[in-house]
Amino acid sequence: MKPELIKHASGALMTDQYQLTMAQLYFRMGMHETRGQFDHFYRSNPDYGIHKAGYCINAGLETVLQWLDQVVFGDEEIQYLRGQKTSTGRQLFGDDFLGWLKTDFNAKAINLFAMPEGRVIHPNVPIHVVEGPLAVGQIIETGLLNNANYQILIATKAARIKQSARGQQLMEFGLRRAQGLGAITGARAALIGGADFSSNVGASHIFGFPPKGTHAHSMVQVFMGMGAGELAAFQAYADVYPDDCLLLVDTIDTIESGVPNAIRVFEDLRRKGHQPVGIRLDSGDLAHLSILSAKMLNDAGFPEVSIVLSNDLDELVIWQIITQIQEEAERYGVDPDKLIKRLVYGVGTHLITSTGDSALDGVYKLVAICQDDEWVPTLKISENVDKTLNPGNKRVWRVYDSRGKATADLITLHGEDVQQASPLILRHPTMASKHRSLEQDEIDHVEKLLVPVILDGEVVYDCPSIEDMRVVRDRDIDHLDPGVRRIMNPHIYHVSLSQKLWDLKQSLIKKVRDQNMA
Amino acid sequence: MKPELIKHASGALMTDQYQLTMAQLYFRMGMHETRGQFDHFYRSNPDYGIHKAGYCINAGLETVLQWLDQVVFGDEEIQYLRGQKTSTGRQLFGDDFLGWLKTDFNAKAINLFAMPEGRVIHPNVPIHVVEGPLAVGQIIETGLLNNANYQILIATKAARIKQSARGQQLMEFGLRRAQGLGAITGARAALIGGADFSSNVGASHIFGFPPKGTHAHSMVQVFMGMGAGELAAFQAYADVYPDDCLLLVDTIDTIESGVPNAIRVFEDLRRKGHQPVGIRLDSGDLAHLSILSAKMLNDAGFPEVSIVLSNDLDELVIWQIITQIQEEAERYGVDPDKLIKRLVYGVGTHLITSTGDSALDGVYKLVAICQDDEWVPTLKISENVDKTLNPGNKRVWRVYDSRGKATADLITLHGEDVQQASPLILRHPTMASKHRSLEQDEIDHVEKLLVPVILDGEVVYDCPSIEDMRVVRDRDIDHLDPGVRRIMNPHIYHVSLSQKLWDLKQSLIKKVRDQNMA
Repeated sequence: MKPELIKHASGALMTDQYQLTMAQLYFRMGMHETRGQFDHFYRSNPDYGIHKAGYCINAGLETVLQWLDQVVFGDEEIQYLRGQKTSTGRQLFGDDFLGWLKTDFNAKAINLFAMPEGRVIHPNVPIHVVEGPLAVGQIIETGLLNNANYQILIATKAARIKQSARGQQLMEFGLRRAQGLGAITGARAALIGGADFSSNVGASHIFGFPPKGTHAHSMVQVFMGMGAGELAAFQAYADVYPDDCLLLVDTIDTIESGVPNAIRVFEDLRRKGHQPVGIRLDSGDLAHLSILSAKMLNDAGFPEVSIVLSNDLDELVIWQIITQIQEEAERYGVDPDKLIKRLVYGVGTHLITSTGDSALDGVYKLVAICQDDEWVPTLKISENVDKTLNPGNKRVWRVYDSRGKATADLITLHGEDVQQASPLILRHPTMASKHRSLEQDEIDHVEKLLVPVILDGEVVYDCPSIEDMRVVRDRDIDHLDPGVRRIMNPHIYHVSLSQKLWDLKQSLIKKVRDQNMA
Repeated sequence: MKPELIKHASGALMTDQYQLTMAQLYFRMGMHETRGQFDHFYRSNPDYGIHKAGYCINAGLETVLQWLDQVVFGDEEIQYLRGQKTSTGRQLFGDDFLGWLKTDFNAKAINLFAMPEGRVIHPNVPIHVVEGPLAVGQIIETGLLNNANYQILIATKAARIKQSARGQQLMEFGLRRAQGLGAITGARAALIGGADFSSNVGASHIFGFPPKGTHAHSMVQVFMGMGAGELAAFQAYADVYPDDCLLLVDTIDTIESGVPNAIRVFEDLRRKGHQPVGIRLDSGDLAHLSILSAKMLNDAGFPEVSIVLSNDLDELVIWQIITQIQEEAERYGVDPDKLIKRLVYGVGTHLITSTGDSALDGVYKLVAICQDDEWVPTLKISENVDKTLNPGNKRVWRVYDSRGKATADLITLHGEDVQQASPLILRHPTMASKHRSLEQDEIDHVEKLLVPVILDGEVVYDCPSIEDMRVVRDRDIDHLDPGVRRIMNPHIYHVSLSQKLWDLKQSLIKKVRDQNMA
């Protein structure tokens, strides 16, 4: 797309129409500066069908902050909004409201509390809490959701794939199958969640990682079409990239042609003092072919070169490849553990689109409004009891048990002293009969989860580097129970309410029903 | 994100690293100006699990063309590439190649033939054919795939949802769940494929449609939190938007509270001379609640206002809603056909992410290279026979039978006269035993499908408006057999090879195997 079109669609107008019509309504009612609190959270971990996630990895905060700087109603935006019509042809947005948008609107005139990127997060626990003027809170909703929901989804998928790959190098290859420019933040999220590198040159550039890649089948085809063959193609590649020689060996026949030709080229390289990097397998039975390839490479004296696998990989396929290698490798005289440790994975489609569950069900809900300097909790009662909001101005904590493992996330009201409580009561969010009680000696420590990011319009938070986010991620994953971590049928991590929040929620539900049914 | 970051990642660097390393290899070998032909096609229609597509809707060409204008290696790009290192710390891209990129590279120095947007398309039939210098053809591959694959996927999903909704108004609501900035071209593709409008303000702006929306639960919650109730919220909305009053009725209880309150407000509006627009249902049993709501609205004298449905809709859910209305409505004294004709659908997540199959398997493959002014077909033999390319410089046709229905797409070699052939032989792409023979009296006409878009570096094609693409779409869908159109278990549309192309493919497969196994 043209850069100016992208710009028009990715700043203040990156919102849903109803945010603007609601903002004008608040403006007309004199309520646009009334302060509200909005919680961003997701309702359930990604469910990919036959497998599902036991946790998510947070991502998106830094791009949300960058986007907030772009949420400015300049001449272009105001002119466009002024041109919108009602169904009877009148001006939809009044000049009074447009004047306010242009002059007085400030997307950062909020307090923002957030989970840092890279942290393990769980359903129904607020990730971003926005507290600010109703009109601002509404207008920034959609863009915040857009940035955060997708990046959490992809960081989570990347973490799962990395886990399934037993920590081996993971490369993000998805640009060609991504949702347009979504590929950019998709690559970012993958790098936060589990990918080591990306093939996406532009995304690698702006996020500060070297882009990675090998070559395509087309290069071999070119040489074949010109009357030369695969070997000539490999030789040319080795001549140009003697220290980065990674050869795709499945254009014709992996075992009969590709690997033998690669070995000949590797031998030449070694004679010239270069270290060959590896081969890539992109079709067929990757487990079986990687064993046969490893055997041939080992026999030829190249036990150290990488074997890169690609072609519709995801966490289950990788798990199956590793399992098959463990069962099959020794029969061919290949050490399965050594083979597994030389594998590198290139994952495209299934990572960048989170195949199986292509969207995180993240929502952004009004939970309180401020009247006469007091926060009044608000509620939406849904047809589905699980979707009824946790109301009010809240705090979020992680409870570590005596083993040092995270045992629950706890949502409380503002002002509750959970770090001293004994016993600590953890209530199920919706089922009255389910609760736990933890004595102090069962608790290692209780950690506050949300950090201040914007206070009174000032950014007070330094976004860490992606490398630092990865440290946080690894530490948090390590604190999970192995049952919560497993990629299939994970144990359900407890997300609990304090007794006070539970009581407030129940009384509000009753009050709303009474008021409105009367 | 910051606009300058988006710009860096969405121009010439919106490519995979290996495209650049291959381009440098061609440059070093003196082959970068050698002309190649690359076909973009997809391998299989989207398969959503229990349902799948029988065809796709083409989209993406205009944004591909706009992107090609941005594929320029300026100072920023060259400086970044110059900074890339080999594994031994040397400069990866040489100054000679970088000089060529900066001075001589022209992304439009190609011939481009393409399917127009809005057309029905089928697996394995070229959608975009790029013929140009090898280095250019490689560097533009990834961005072309990124733009076209995703937009085809979403246009197709939108067409299915529109079909399931029996042509009723469809609104795209997906910005908050989309893949970041992918939401922009996602909205565009939805508008081409089946959506009438989008809630995405920025995308609506740049594509020239009025954005649509209602209001959120939060607006009702605000009024409740301030001690007023749902009715006061509705009244405020009607005061501000008297001619566009569409009320979300499920914040508390749809039937006990929401619809009765909406009716009171509608009565006020009517007294003041305004026509209320409708209600929106966003939770619960949408079929049942729409019947009850319709009954109440009818009884109150509002049989014409719309009932907007939203909440995790897709083509199957809509199909089920309509089926249930047909079975259940009369019991409540509601005419099912009239109810179905007043429904409007707001579809978010499942449209913008194509839930169930979140990526189109579109590929871009070298099929021929030009040597001494002659096109030499190239081939990649895959482990999977279905994935073996159709080689050579080809043409694509649609064959309409005597009923005027499209009966097959036919891929031929350049120069074949299929419009006069009698009989016309249609060969299965991979199975030798499967072929059809059509006599002239069985054929209404044979249509050429690809149009010239860029010739010798000049754009020779005027992109039509989205409205005009919709006309093409409706005409093409109408020409499909109903069995191909159905949303579950569709009949397989024939994509065939001419006898000459079949013979070429078989001889090439044999030649490649013989050469490389020798």
